[in-house]
Amino acid sequence: MRAEVIAVGTEILLGQIVNSDARFLSEELASLGIDVYYHTVVGDNRDRVEEAFAAARARSELIIFTGGLGPTADDLTKETVAEALGLELKLDQAWLEKLKGFYASLNRPMPPQNVKQALIPRGARLLYNDNGTAPGVYIEKAPWTVILLPGPPRELIPMFRDRVSPLLREKAGSVTIRSRVVKIIGMGESAVEEQVADLVQQQNPTVAPLAHNFEVHLRITAKGSSEEETRALISRVDEELGRRLGPYIYGRDQDTLEKVVGRLLAAGGMTLAVAESCTGGRLADLITNVPGSSRYFLGGVAAYSNEVKEKVLGVEKALLEAEGAVSRGVAEAMASGVRRLLGADYGIGVTGVAGPDGGTAAKPVGLVCLALAGEGFCRSREIFFPGKREAVKGRSAAAALNLLRQELLEGV
Amino acid sequence: MRAEVIAVGTEILLGQIVNSDARFLSEELASLGIDVYYHTVVGDNRDRVEEAFAAARARSELIIFTGGLGPTADDLTKETVAEALGLELKLDQAWLEKLKGFYASLNRPMPPQNVKQALIPRGARLLYNDNGTAPGVYIEKAPWTVILLPGPPRELIPMFRDRVSPLLREKAGSVTIRSRVVKIIGMGESAVEEQVADLVQQQNPTVAPLAHNFEVHLRITAKGSSEEETRALISRVDEELGRRLGPYIYGRDQDTLEKVVGRLLAAGGMTLAVAESCTGGRLADLITNVPGSSRYFLGGVAAYSNEVKEKVLGVEKALLEAEGAVSRGVAEAMASGVRRLLGADYGIGVTGVAGPDGGTAAKPVGLVCLALAGEGFCRSREIFFPGKREAVKGRSAAAALNLLRQELLEGV
Repeated sequence: MRAEVIAVGTEILLGQIVNSDARFLSEELASLGIDVYYHTVVGDNRDRVEEAFAAARARSELIIFTGGLGPTADDLTKETVAEALGLELKLDQAWLEKLKGFYASLNRPMPPQNVKQALIPRGARLLYNDNGTAPGVYIEKAPWTVILLPGPPRELIPMFRDRVSPLLREKAGSVTIRSRVVKIIGMGESAVEEQVADLVQQQNPTVAPLAHNFEVHLRITAKGSSEEETRALISRVDEELGRRLGPYIYGRDQDTLEKVVGRLLAAGGMTLAVAESCTGGRLADLITNVPGSSRYFLGGVAAYSNEVKEKVLGVEKALLEAEGAVSRGVAEAMASGVRRLLGADYGIGVTGVAGPDGGTAAKPVGLVCLALAGEGFCRSREIFFPGKREAVKGRSAAAALNLLRQELLEGV
Repeated sequence: MRAEVIAVGTEILLGQIVNSDARFLSEELASLGIDVYYHTVVGDNRDRVEEAFAAARARSELIIFTGGLGPTADDLTKETVAEALGLELKLDQAWLEKLKGFYASLNRPMPPQNVKQALIPRGARLLYNDNGTAPGVYIEKAPWTVILLPGPPRELIPMFRDRVSPLLREKAGSVTIRSRVVKIIGMGESAVEEQVADLVQQQNPTVAPLAHNFEVHLRITAKGSSEEETRALISRVDEELGRRLGPYIYGRDQDTLEKVVGRLLAAGGMTLAVAESCTGGRLADLITNVPGSSRYFLGGVAAYSNEVKEKVLGVEKALLEAEGAVSRGVAEAMASGVRRLLGADYGIGVTGVAGPDGGTAAKPVGLVCLALAGEGFCRSREIFFPGKREAVKGRSAAAALNLLRQELLEGV
């Protein structure tokens, strides 16, 4: 079954609100195994709503409208749809009574224009609205199913879940669609793409790469006749990805790099301290976004000036002068220094040139040194991250977390 | 000029992301005086992109595509649009060199499929991408203007503002529309709205309130027949806002709170150090997002555990035991401690309950103590911020910056 969503609302075309109803409906429809092929947004204009509806009827069987069910003159979704389908509007007496009761409870007379909210196309099913005065409408007119929903999410969401979803589940029959997102760090989008080119060509499951912040995500989507079959299809591809990209895969779905590292630290009963120069607090901020991070994160030092590196972290002046603040030696001294200072099991040190100024030929903007210190070892690496200041900070923080993740995994 | 926005991306139709690009573009186009009549979303499918483009050409003069400009096989916006307009794709040698340079800087060969990102329809203008490998494309083919933009907002937003907006401003012709955003901190959205209710009713300039992160922004938009007239209209309203909201207004347009505070520090030749508990590095991260912040920011300590507060910042154990880690006393000791430790002119201390756990009846989630220490003074306040963990962190960091801003302004 091909589906599409048509939102009616000038406020979306003015950019005043985002079309979150379409996102919600698409996600729900996908989980019912119904493919959504189009989203359209049109203003509160009869001709354009009519035109959008005609285009939709020519290509889809399920058409869901959102918005334009209010009492005012520019709310015209119901009227336009009914006319296009040749259905007369009839007064729904029960809804009219409900509306009157609602206004009576406010000690106000019902405004006369609200009567139109109780009009329903002949033969259609009224969808009860628990959170507003506009009922939804469910129309079966072969070959189409047309559903009209109110625009406000607090009315639309429960109406869809409680009243529409059960009806569609019956229609959609037995197909189940599920997705899983596999998350990769430390490898660029095209490099990932090369590794999985053949999988991206497949039809079921599909594999779609997506660059997300400083990571690459691969979305596996499968269709099957049962939950079990669908999951099995996904797992097979997931295992194949594991074979190809193993150490670069850090998690799935709701995982974030900082959550995964936190879980590994907590599982091993280990603690962490960080010393940051170019990331300037970003790394500590990410780590402490995770609820419960106080169990394993002792704290950090944002050592922005050389004086702080010396005085607080104990980095030697001679080392700073000989190798420069951006060097593997200084990163190591920062990692060891903060580990010792806070008495942590692991210490991370990050120093680099975030830009836009401060770069030189030998040490350009984007050059970053990362170090990890633990019991009896301290190692470091130098990486180059292209991009602007905030990207350099973000990529450096992610790479530092990944360095620790790799260490913790080796210990497992 | 009729405009519409076509987003190409299966992830939107699956409900995995919301179409925020369309919202952004609509708002920007509205401020240029260009009417947007449709949004469409189609998947990464050549036939459907072609069909959507044909429908758009039949009804609009300005057509903006988002997404589908990546290096992979299912990125096909550019190819489809070029073919529909009968334009051959040509290699842009300069962009190819840029791509090669980018990969060379990573010490990696450029994946062969990335070459297609350097292909541009003949006669089109390449739109430079400062934040990614996909350039945008600007095509004039009478009667249409067709613009292709990359999907990720961090690439699309600056490209539109810096490269597309000036071109469209010229086309939009003789009416000048200008906006100015007045930025407010320390006052809630409804409180601001009450103060400006009469201005929001006006037609020219319009005043639109917008909650943005932990701030309230008021966008003043004026239409006039000249740049001068438009600016005068805006300035009159801006001055009125100054009279009503004076001390709560921290800046305008591109200003951020951290930039404004940085300018004030730099102007006074003053330095800053921060001690963070509940914000866990967020404050230092914000401060160091500003290029050149090393001139006034010495560093910070994320003191997540009580041991760190004692050992590194010198907060007394007796104080921690008597008042608890979340108290004005401890915030003051942290502020003074970090100021002394790093030898800064100002020290900030932040401690609070970020949640979701750790709250008590006396000290609930959202309770935050902020302190500012300077030469001969140290003062603090207790604030309650409702919201989730990340919101509590963000609001606390913003309030801490605002505390320092007020101090620096009094000194002026």
